[in-house]
Amino acid sequence: MEKFEVTILGCGSATPTLRHNPSAQMINIHDKLSLVDCGEGTQLQMRSYKQKFMALRNVFISHLHGDHCLGLVGMISSFGLLGRTKDFHVYAHEQLKPLLDEQLRLFCHGLDFEVVFHRVDSKKHALIYEDRTMEVWSLPLKHSMECNGFLFKEKQGLPHVNREMTDCYGIPVSQLNNIKAGADWTMPDGRVIANSRLTTPADPPRTYAYCSDTAYLPKLVPMIKGVDLLYHETTYDNSKEAKARVHGHSTAGQAAEIARQAEVGQLMIGHYSASYDDDSLLLSQAREVFPNTIAANEGMTVRVCKM
Amino acid sequence: MEKFEVTILGCGSATPTLRHNPSAQMINIHDKLSLVDCGEGTQLQMRSYKQKFMALRNVFISHLHGDHCLGLVGMISSFGLLGRTKDFHVYAHEQLKPLLDEQLRLFCHGLDFEVVFHRVDSKKHALIYEDRTMEVWSLPLKHSMECNGFLFKEKQGLPHVNREMTDCYGIPVSQLNNIKAGADWTMPDGRVIANSRLTTPADPPRTYAYCSDTAYLPKLVPMIKGVDLLYHETTYDNSKEAKARVHGHSTAGQAAEIARQAEVGQLMIGHYSASYDDDSLLLSQAREVFPNTIAANEGMTVRVCKM
Repeated sequence: MEKFEVTILGCGSATPTLRHNPSAQMINIHDKLSLVDCGEGTQLQMRSYKQKFMALRNVFISHLHGDHCLGLVGMISSFGLLGRTKDFHVYAHEQLKPLLDEQLRLFCHGLDFEVVFHRVDSKKHALIYEDRTMEVWSLPLKHSMECNGFLFKEKQGLPHVNREMTDCYGIPVSQLNNIKAGADWTMPDGRVIANSRLTTPADPPRTYAYCSDTAYLPKLVPMIKGVDLLYHETTYDNSKEAKARVHGHSTAGQAAEIARQAEVGQLMIGHYSASYDDDSLLLSQAREVFPNTIAANEGMTVRVCKM
Repeated sequence: MEKFEVTILGCGSATPTLRHNPSAQMINIHDKLSLVDCGEGTQLQMRSYKQKFMALRNVFISHLHGDHCLGLVGMISSFGLLGRTKDFHVYAHEQLKPLLDEQLRLFCHGLDFEVVFHRVDSKKHALIYEDRTMEVWSLPLKHSMECNGFLFKEKQGLPHVNREMTDCYGIPVSQLNNIKAGADWTMPDGRVIANSRLTTPADPPRTYAYCSDTAYLPKLVPMIKGVDLLYHETTYDNSKEAKARVHGHSTAGQAAEIARQAEVGQLMIGHYSASYDDDSLLLSQAREVFPNTIAANEGMTVRVCKM
């Protein structure tokens, strides 16, 4: 099966600590690499965890709080110093554009590639990126400023060719792409072999939703219904519900409640407040509501798969 | 003796590596803390090396390359989140001002302190900061953009009171500040005890010069003549002299030659190119010209003292 993996580069919140870096995740879909958020130090985290830094195609920024985007310019500068020639695409709220332009002017002289900016309307649930392999949709969130999550959807792939069967019928390798695309096979004697005998069904497409930062937001549920993996912020434990509401964040129980209502395959919590010495309280509170919950940690790679 | 220490938070160059962080140093003069340069990740380095993050009074930025200043906004943001109320002073080229203003507006809402910007003219050797304890002078450097180093000068302190002598003459503790300030002491019987009998000479003031980034620049020599510790960039080894010239950097031999001509007490090399797997070649080349050379490394604290 093709890769669909999420690697955590940072899962702390606004105040960095020695335990958790600010937000950043590497999404690998069929070896196409995207970054989600880019807090300070993300480029070093990519090196620490041996991510293919230069192969990164694009970055999706959820909102303009520093812990989600202050690593962007340093990373782009390093791309330049390391000789990148491939364009780099930034998907973010339009407020970032003038600042990024000014920073590129000051800190990133003579780049041999374009930094292409794509405006994301944080208020809309819309398709913002698409290629042959995947789609990315914005997910409007409820935070202290305009903010959106991202839904990564693998596209429906083609069926798998059953090589034992195609060999048995003497089908030449040159024809396998046609078989994969759905063609039947006509034997020299005129018999037609149905495609369904030559292939096994395609893997069902997988989905990953990134929801940080957000208050408890039930209207998110239909947008992330049935995703295979949901990253939902869990800044606070359940006793801090009032504080979470004020700051536009969620408790562990609220994150898990969203996961439960959306019937997701697995929940990953993160964006932990710096006030917690470990994440076990948050994890146990989330698991009370949604047992299939894991706690994000730096360096961890999670495979997105059907449960 | 009062503290005068330099702690290395980063001594790499433009491309960060897992061995060296981008430029930043903490200067502790009599427990007053200043930062010199603030590359990406500096706030985390301060935490890693247990520096008193919140006690920082000011930052001196040498120039507007990202590896010297991209950590500034994240650090100021964290000051705000951690409840800082004391003003924070930034000394830098005026080009940084509009960008910093825009970043503060976007990423640092509702700070309970002022970020006070002080323009530094990189072309002048001038006094840019002064308090009771120290002076900071700009040092014009020669780089691919306007750039200046900094000269930290401890002020001449007061003599030390010789407590054995003052006790012997029955001088009350309340009078010791006067003695320290130079007063003689008159005994009840009218005898005058000369101040020189009651004190030992003040410690000679110490000096530290930070010179990064710069090409070989002999006209720097009179400005840093006789400093106790010189940090001079050493981006390349001696075989890369042409490359160093093109990029406005120095070789190990050139850094050491400046140290030799300026008759400094000790040389510390740093700002190593990412192309070196270790710093031993640079160190040995520098020592050939100036034996009392040390190699900067992250987490290292160097005492500034008279040799």
